[in-house]
Amino acid sequence: MFKKILYPTDFSDVSKKAIGYIKQLGEGGAETVIVLHVIDERAMQSVARYASGKSMEIEQTIIYDAEQEIKIIEDELKKSGFKVKSMIQTGIPLREILKVEEEENVSVIIIGSHGKSNLEEIFLGSVSEKVSRKCKSPVLIIKR
Amino acid sequence: MFKKILYPTDFSDVSKKAIGYIKQLGEGGAETVIVLHVIDERAMQSVARYASGKSMEIEQTIIYDAEQEIKIIEDELKKSGFKVKSMIQTGIPLREILKVEEEENVSVIIIGSHGKSNLEEIFLGSVSEKVSRKCKSPVLIIKR
Repeated sequence: MFKKILYPTDFSDVSKKAIGYIKQLGEGGAETVIVLHVIDERAMQSVARYASGKSMEIEQTIIYDAEQEIKIIEDELKKSGFKVKSMIQTGIPLREILKVEEEENVSVIIIGSHGKSNLEEIFLGSVSEKVSRKCKSPVLIIKR
Repeated sequence: MFKKILYPTDFSDVSKKAIGYIKQLGEGGAETVIVLHVIDERAMQSVARYASGKSMEIEQTIIYDAEQEIKIIEDELKKSGFKVKSMIQTGIPLREILKVEEEENVSVIIIGSHGKSNLEEIFLGSVSEKVSRKCKSPVLIIKR
């Protein structure tokens, strides 16, 4: 029932806390983890607007950093015996998460309750809340 | 990490779907399940207002039915090897759930995304949404 886990992460502390729970689901029969990081395209657009001369450079740095972060998670999960598929996408986080949920036919989504952009979430609601409202799979929300 | 599960249920179909997931967590090391049914005190008050002559009788029927329903769940979970503690409380569901979460020091809450009072939830938000916002433990939300 928890065979294939979708783990969307923005590399925040609470999101990393989820890894411990993923490991326990491994003992309960989970086999595959899809680690998904979405680079928010709206943030990228802001970068382009305010740092137009250097936006290409900044974008490359963001992607490079994400690749490094996701590699660490991938290695840790592989060590625990999981098959891991890592994905870095640019888009609207909610939309990308739901797309991967469907395409990969996942059995559970594990997500941190709050992301890095805390203030924004207070006004607009957290990504985890939106995901849990719109997704089809069970969602395990990890709190701070 | 998932040793002690709090399973609040209103006996709706989606809530019963959660039982399958609880069982899988059992394979992952979960030992105890607290099955909690909250009789909404606001509904009880309406009963008292509109059926004042028979309100005592109706209240007893509601409690009796809840006891029967919770017994079936308890037996099923015990058969899967869990220690089970069943509780029927009268109060505001969100408040009672959070109280038991704290008193029993649970490690995870498993809850259906929507309850029986569907229309009300469309306007006021679901109990699961409120629980996931206010609780401290991880919450696994099971979808329809």
